[in-house]
Amino acid sequence: MIQLSPLLLLPLFSVFNSIADASTEYLRPQIHLTPDQGWMNDPNGMFYDRKDKLWHVYFQHNPDKKSIWATPVTWGHSTSKDLLTWDYHGNALEPENDDEGIFSGSVVVDRNNTSGFFNDSTDPEQRIVAIYTNNAQLQTQEIAYSLDKGYSFIKYDQNPVINVNSSQQRDPKVLWHDESNQWIMVVAKTQEFKVQIYGSPDLKKWDLKSNFTSNGYLGFQYECPGLFKLPIENPLNDTVTSKWVLLLAINPGSPLGGSINEYFIGDFDGTTFHPDDGATRFMDIGKDFYAFQSFDNTEPEDGALGLAWASNWQYANTVPTENWRSSMSLVRNYTLKYVDVNPENYGLTLIQKPPVFDTKETRKNDTLKSIDTVNEYEVTDLKLDKYSNVATDFNSWRNSTGILEFTLKFTQTKFGFSYSNDTTFGIFINSQTVRGTQETLKVAFDALSSSWYVDRSTQHPFQRETSMFTERLSTYVEKMDESDDGIEFSLHGVVDRDILELYFNDGSIAMTSTFFFSQGKIPTSLAIVTDAEESFITINEFVVKELGFK
Amino acid sequence: MIQLSPLLLLPLFSVFNSIADASTEYLRPQIHLTPDQGWMNDPNGMFYDRKDKLWHVYFQHNPDKKSIWATPVTWGHSTSKDLLTWDYHGNALEPENDDEGIFSGSVVVDRNNTSGFFNDSTDPEQRIVAIYTNNAQLQTQEIAYSLDKGYSFIKYDQNPVINVNSSQQRDPKVLWHDESNQWIMVVAKTQEFKVQIYGSPDLKKWDLKSNFTSNGYLGFQYECPGLFKLPIENPLNDTVTSKWVLLLAINPGSPLGGSINEYFIGDFDGTTFHPDDGATRFMDIGKDFYAFQSFDNTEPEDGALGLAWASNWQYANTVPTENWRSSMSLVRNYTLKYVDVNPENYGLTLIQKPPVFDTKETRKNDTLKSIDTVNEYEVTDLKLDKYSNVATDFNSWRNSTGILEFTLKFTQTKFGFSYSNDTTFGIFINSQTVRGTQETLKVAFDALSSSWYVDRSTQHPFQRETSMFTERLSTYVEKMDESDDGIEFSLHGVVDRDILELYFNDGSIAMTSTFFFSQGKIPTSLAIVTDAEESFITINEFVVKELGFK
Repeated sequence: MIQLSPLLLLPLFSVFNSIADASTEYLRPQIHLTPDQGWMNDPNGMFYDRKDKLWHVYFQHNPDKKSIWATPVTWGHSTSKDLLTWDYHGNALEPENDDEGIFSGSVVVDRNNTSGFFNDSTDPEQRIVAIYTNNAQLQTQEIAYSLDKGYSFIKYDQNPVINVNSSQQRDPKVLWHDESNQWIMVVAKTQEFKVQIYGSPDLKKWDLKSNFTSNGYLGFQYECPGLFKLPIENPLNDTVTSKWVLLLAINPGSPLGGSINEYFIGDFDGTTFHPDDGATRFMDIGKDFYAFQSFDNTEPEDGALGLAWASNWQYANTVPTENWRSSMSLVRNYTLKYVDVNPENYGLTLIQKPPVFDTKETRKNDTLKSIDTVNEYEVTDLKLDKYSNVATDFNSWRNSTGILEFTLKFTQTKFGFSYSNDTTFGIFINSQTVRGTQETLKVAFDALSSSWYVDRSTQHPFQRETSMFTERLSTYVEKMDESDDGIEFSLHGVVDRDILELYFNDGSIAMTSTFFFSQGKIPTSLAIVTDAEESFITINEFVVKELGFK
Repeated sequence: MIQLSPLLLLPLFSVFNSIADASTEYLRPQIHLTPDQGWMNDPNGMFYDRKDKLWHVYFQHNPDKKSIWATPVTWGHSTSKDLLTWDYHGNALEPENDDEGIFSGSVVVDRNNTSGFFNDSTDPEQRIVAIYTNNAQLQTQEIAYSLDKGYSFIKYDQNPVINVNSSQQRDPKVLWHDESNQWIMVVAKTQEFKVQIYGSPDLKKWDLKSNFTSNGYLGFQYECPGLFKLPIENPLNDTVTSKWVLLLAINPGSPLGGSINEYFIGDFDGTTFHPDDGATRFMDIGKDFYAFQSFDNTEPEDGALGLAWASNWQYANTVPTENWRSSMSLVRNYTLKYVDVNPENYGLTLIQKPPVFDTKETRKNDTLKSIDTVNEYEVTDLKLDKYSNVATDFNSWRNSTGILEFTLKFTQTKFGFSYSNDTTFGIFINSQTVRGTQETLKVAFDALSSSWYVDRSTQHPFQRETSMFTERLSTYVEKMDESDDGIEFSLHGVVDRDILELYFNDGSIAMTSTFFFSQGKIPTSLAIVTDAEESFITINEFVVKELGFK
């Protein structure tokens, strides 16, 4: 079950009206992974246990209540049946000494016992090996195995498995590469801007195969690389139906400030990653999506599943949550797709979709679902203008869950604007009124510039005083499609207490933003507003759901 | 002389206390190029007339007082003796029809009359040929020549010189390539993400040599490419003492929102540009630096000189200046230099320095200088803490010029901070007090994250209401140098009415930001403030100059 504070547990759709200011539990996301208490950063060791149908996420952790990054850094551990609600299990891996850390890494299911760590008493589906960075005097790559389905680990007695005598080699992500019949590791030689690719037959002996050097936006250093093969949703021919994607995190030094994830599309031959072009692409154009990792051992025909740390090193240690700091993003499903990038051109793009309470497993097995729709609001076929009244009618602010999911499909019907036209409509995400004040998160589309923007300004002193907490972010979007009425766009959004995830145009652009309402305020209602006298868009469909626990 | 409104002309250091709110002339930069009236965007045709020692800048222009982008788009024209004060000459090139435009392009000095446009009556140093995009049904590349030193042009009677039957090929920048004895043009095939390289013996016949495709951050489209060879300030050996740099503008679609300039370092062989690596680098990490162009015909041993349009298409048409819209950046001097990018690595980086009233020409010839220091303030060797009083003492707010230049060199002397330490100091750029309110532009350094940030929030309604006017921007900086006392950093800043240009670490990172104080306020004073009880930096040198006209 999800970790709720006692205050929130009763009644079922929790009372959330006037939490004392001293408590910051009102800011805790409900369908995003957070640690019960203490500090969290990068996701680690993510894998799916096919036997027990259980999703495991480890994470960089220090359970101390000060909730700031500090050694000893451990692997905290949470599990989920439905990828929305998470059970916290404390530390799964700890360093030898208090001034050291088990830094980021990955887990593989060593079904065929290539490592020799297992015997018949461990089910092949639960032969769990962790590959991580031991951060002591140097950064070395070490391994450990679990005989209890991933709840605890035994460190290999001949660690490290890679030692290049460097304090700056870290974050191994390992996958089984069927085509070359070997384990492949991508690991960052951080300050040399290298993603190093190693191969191994047994997870113990590793050979350096190649370096992917000085590509993308460099920032200060490379961290947390990844590599996966993704299906192309709409292949151009029968030959190329999938592509490899190399993932990379840079921090600090994002052009937006701080931390960001980028990716490269290309081919991988078991030795070298060959990018298709020289382009730099960011995974998520918000400021709160870092150190992405994909799950090992998922079933590949669906694409990959993964998540990222939903924060930014510029302010992660000072965000105004008291007993824990930060959450993960929602788990997202990843594929590739050719999409229009401008009127003359299309390109292969990463597609991200959050499977909010509708994963393959939960579709198969309804009892796995932990989340239900508490309230629903729908508008269809509306020519939006300033006289339209588009606002949720939940009348539920006294017992809101603070979890809203919305889908908007619309057609821009007017073109050829001048600068004096009203060409903007906003989606206002409003809090309840507390002590006479209400706060609003603004998401808006400007038809003149074909751009979406977020303004996450709130009244919270943390935000007002933290200049690196960039409040205004924006992105260009190309049309998704054309019809006789005009050009079509879509937006899928999930807002959960202190985090807003936006998926533009069927997941071809994502933007993740944390935000902090003050005085116990949580998101309770949505409205669409415009000042335009004459409609310039038609809302084809706008559906808002308030989500709550079963 | 610079174009001042009558209000500003008397007395010499203009009275600027209580301009009526209706006038927005208080926002007009004084040492940045602005059009007398009307709309301006990309710089065009920039060249240096060595005979008359005169700098020419053309620009995308429409002199209509509505000051918004509209056809007919012309080439406006301004000239300068000192690169700080500019004479406006109206339109130099106009399209054939009112719904068309002379879009961006460049000028070369055709000293050897390769084009055949000139005879002995035109001095070789003043054989001016413009190469531009004619924007009508298609975008074609055309040329025109001037027989009056660049003040007016005669269009070639066999235009276009390049017609690829496209509405999306534009912004030719031409240079003489000595090594291959030909003219080289870089031009954008915008939506195909191509920089096309053409060669010509005579500026009339052009052959496509190569395409530089899908590199860098792609955005919506490529615009305004550039190519120049720059000296390396600190070459690693005697063989490689210079490198070629390919420049590129993308709009919309910058990760910061809207418009941005990027660059690639490599080699050019007369046919193809070969980048040294796959890295994406932005020229300026603010939101107001677009469509950069370099001057033709400067003397190469100094590096290149160039400037950019200091605005962003996200808000350029709506900024709150009434009779004109936007300015150029300061002219900057460009070189390359190996700088530290992290503790383990260094890299070749573009170095930008504004030659504020100290160009080679003005050094040689003092009578060319139009700008003087009106007031000066200096602090040296100060351990900064909350009790320090570092603030300009100009006492000049009643007749300030609104132009401040400052240089800060400092040493970070304390390390190993925790998150509860005060690790930030700010440079506050304050306005005078008008009707009881003062506004402040904040530039701050955080030693914990080794980052600079700008918070350009003001009380102006335009800024408050324009969510795409991102107010908070930040950048990581690596140390410049080390000493026994700690690690050293520097910052050079110029603030001029509504624009702030920051040059971190001797020009290795630049950040350009426009801002709009309300109610006639202009920048009048600077202070350095910190809340730290215990000093964590020593100010080695802090010099502030208020600049004014001679």
